[in-house]
Amino acid sequence: MLKLCRQYLNWIQNSVFEGELTRVKLDELLHKIKVIMKEDKDSIIIFKSRQEKWLEKEVIGREKNNLDNIL
Amino acid sequence: MLKLCRQYLNWIQNSVFEGELTRVKLDELLHKIKVIMKEDKDSIIIFKSRQEKWLEKEVIGREKNNLDNIL
Repeated sequence: MLKLCRQYLNWIQNSVFEGELTRVKLDELLHKIKVIMKEDKDSIIIFKSRQEKWLEKEVIGREKNNLDNIL
Repeated sequence: MLKLCRQYLNWIQNSVFEGELTRVKLDELLHKIKVIMKEDKDSIIIFKSRQEKWLEKEVIGREKNNLDNIL
């Protein structure tokens, strides 16, 4: 799942990813996610902001996304 | 940290929380977070959307936020 999500998004922290996707790319990713997830056990939550300017991001503490050994 | 965040936000999944806060409440929460976090080790990422209508949420699979034993 990590490997898949990283093909489309930037890994932020633990099981959180971020990125800009077209509608087509998002559908493609969601399709692949559904193939490998267990829908009765796992869950995926997608927060979509139509424009980046409407989503402000603030980081406190150490940025973790360069550490590959956490997940 | 979980206990603190839950006083202000809804717990969504693992270490992800969501909620509507006033500027004052957010500052209060961030202040308390900074007291208990280790800024050289931990990290907090805040995504802010000024209006809820600009943030769309989609859940796939099981909604986890009723399970208290995951964190």
